[in-house]
Amino acid sequence: MGRVTARRPVVRVRDGEVSRRVDTLVAEEPLEIRLNGKPLAITMRTPGDDFALAVGFLVSEGVVADASDVSRIAYCAGATADGSNTYNVVDVRLAPGVPVPDITLERNVYTTSSCGLCGKASLDAVRTTARWPVAGPGPRLRPDVLSALPDALRAAQGVFHQTGGLHAAGLFTPDGDVLDVREDVGRHNAVDKLVGRAYQQGALPLRDTVLLVSGRASFELVQKAVMAGIPALAAVSAPSSLAVELAAETGLTLVGFLRGRSMNVYAGAERVVLEPSGSRN
Amino acid sequence: MGRVTARRPVVRVRDGEVSRRVDTLVAEEPLEIRLNGKPLAITMRTPGDDFALAVGFLVSEGVVADASDVSRIAYCAGATADGSNTYNVVDVRLAPGVPVPDITLERNVYTTSSCGLCGKASLDAVRTTARWPVAGPGPRLRPDVLSALPDALRAAQGVFHQTGGLHAAGLFTPDGDVLDVREDVGRHNAVDKLVGRAYQQGALPLRDTVLLVSGRASFELVQKAVMAGIPALAAVSAPSSLAVELAAETGLTLVGFLRGRSMNVYAGAERVVLEPSGSRN
Repeated sequence: MGRVTARRPVVRVRDGEVSRRVDTLVAEEPLEIRLNGKPLAITMRTPGDDFALAVGFLVSEGVVADASDVSRIAYCAGATADGSNTYNVVDVRLAPGVPVPDITLERNVYTTSSCGLCGKASLDAVRTTARWPVAGPGPRLRPDVLSALPDALRAAQGVFHQTGGLHAAGLFTPDGDVLDVREDVGRHNAVDKLVGRAYQQGALPLRDTVLLVSGRASFELVQKAVMAGIPALAAVSAPSSLAVELAAETGLTLVGFLRGRSMNVYAGAERVVLEPSGSRN
Repeated sequence: MGRVTARRPVVRVRDGEVSRRVDTLVAEEPLEIRLNGKPLAITMRTPGDDFALAVGFLVSEGVVADASDVSRIAYCAGATADGSNTYNVVDVRLAPGVPVPDITLERNVYTTSSCGLCGKASLDAVRTTARWPVAGPGPRLRPDVLSALPDALRAAQGVFHQTGGLHAAGLFTPDGDVLDVREDVGRHNAVDKLVGRAYQQGALPLRDTVLLVSGRASFELVQKAVMAGIPALAAVSAPSSLAVELAAETGLTLVGFLRGRSMNVYAGAERVVLEPSGSRN
C-alpha cells in the first residue's frame, strides 16, 4: 500500500499562522494499458488494483466480458528506457478467439475512452456491445436505503481520510450492504477497479446491485455501469445531460444529488419505491 | 447558450415526499479535436468556447504557442454519417511551417492526454516543450488575497448556480482581480478554454497570473498551467503526489485546500508572503 499515498513537506497557513509539516498526499501515477502487447490507453491512476483496473477498463470498452476472455495479465518489465519495471505498464493478453478491437490510426480516438469519450458513435457502441441489458424490472430500491449509502461509502474509504484527495465507487446490494469499495484519484478508475475485481471473480453481470460514486454522474460512468450489467447508479452530485439520456435509453436507474434524505431520480424511477406526495399525512 | 444546459424531467424525493418537476442539467457532449483534418482527441465537454478549448488543448500539448501558429479553426460539417454539422467536431489547421506532432499508431496513446495522461515521457515533454519557464521570482502572493479567490470564482460561475454540475477555472491577477472564468463539465476542459481564450487574444504566456480550479490539483492541471506560463495554481481541494512533484520541478507555486483563511502551500512557497508563526502576537 506504500504507493497509494506519498509524504511531502507542506507549508500550512491557518488564519495567518504559518507552520511547516509533512502531509500525506494521494499518489497519482500513469498506467499504460496494453492489449496483446500494443498500447491501448494511458490513465492517471492511484497505484493498486492495477490488473483489476485494466480488465475493468476492457469491460467498459466491450473488449472482454467473461473471465475466460483474458488469458494472462502482467506488468511489463523493460517498458522504460532503462529497462526497469515501473509497475506502470500492464499488458492484457486475450484468450484465443476473443476479437481484438481495431486500434488503427483511423481509430486512434479510441484510446481517449479512458476519460469518458464517445458521442454518437459510442452511444451506438454501448447499445450494440452491452452483453447484459440492464432494462427490465431489476431490484426494488427504497429511498431510505439509498440515503444511507453515502455514509457507508465514506466509512469504507480508508485513503480519503488520510489525503482528502480520492474519489470512491461503492457497490451495494439493494438492501444497502457493501459489496466492494474502490478508491482512486480518478472517478472512472475507481469504477473500473470495482468492475474489474467483479470480473476477476466471475461476478459479471452485476445484476442485483447499486453503484454509488462520490462525485458527479457523467456519461462515462453511466456507460461503465451499463457495460457491467449494473441496473442502478447513484451519485452524490449532479448528472450531466448525456448521462441522463444514456440512462433513459438503456433502462438504468439514475439517482443524483443523493444527500441526506433527498435525491433526484433522473431515469428508471420505476425501480424506486416512491410513496406519493402527502402519503404520510 | 442554449446547449450549455438542458432541461429534463426529474422525480424529486425530499424527506419521503415525492414530486415531479423539470430540472436544469449541465450539457455534456463529445468534442472531437482534429489537427490538419486528422482526429487527435475526443473530450466530453460542455458546448461553448469550442475553438478556445481546441487551441487551449493544443497549447497544453505543446503543439501551438503563438497566435500565428494557427491558420484556421472551423467546425466540420459532414463529419457525421448523415452529413450534418453537429458542432461536435472542430478542425484546427496549423500555419505553414508549424511542426505537426507525430500521430502515428505507435504514438496513439498521445490522444489520451485530454484526460491527464503522461508519465515519465510526458514529464520529460513538459520540461522540454515549455516555451515559457515559470521558475523565477514571479508574482508576490498574499494569503488574504488567495483566500478571497474561491468566493470570487463562485460568484462568477453562472451555469453552476443553475445546475450544480460544473467545474470552474478562474484566472486572476496577483491582486485578486478576475481576468477570466470558464466553466465545463470537465476540469481540464475549463482550463483549456481559459488558456485557449488567452491564446486567441495573444496573451500567452500568462506570467503575472494565478489560476484557481474548483476541485483537486492533478498532474494534468499543473502541466496545463506550466504550458501556459502561469506561475501559480491554487485548488480548493487536495493535490496529488505527481502534481506536487511536477510543480516543484518546474517552479510553479502550488496551493491546495484553499478554504476560508486556510491553505497548504505544496511548492513554490517563496512567492507566498508568509509571516512567521506567532508574528501577530
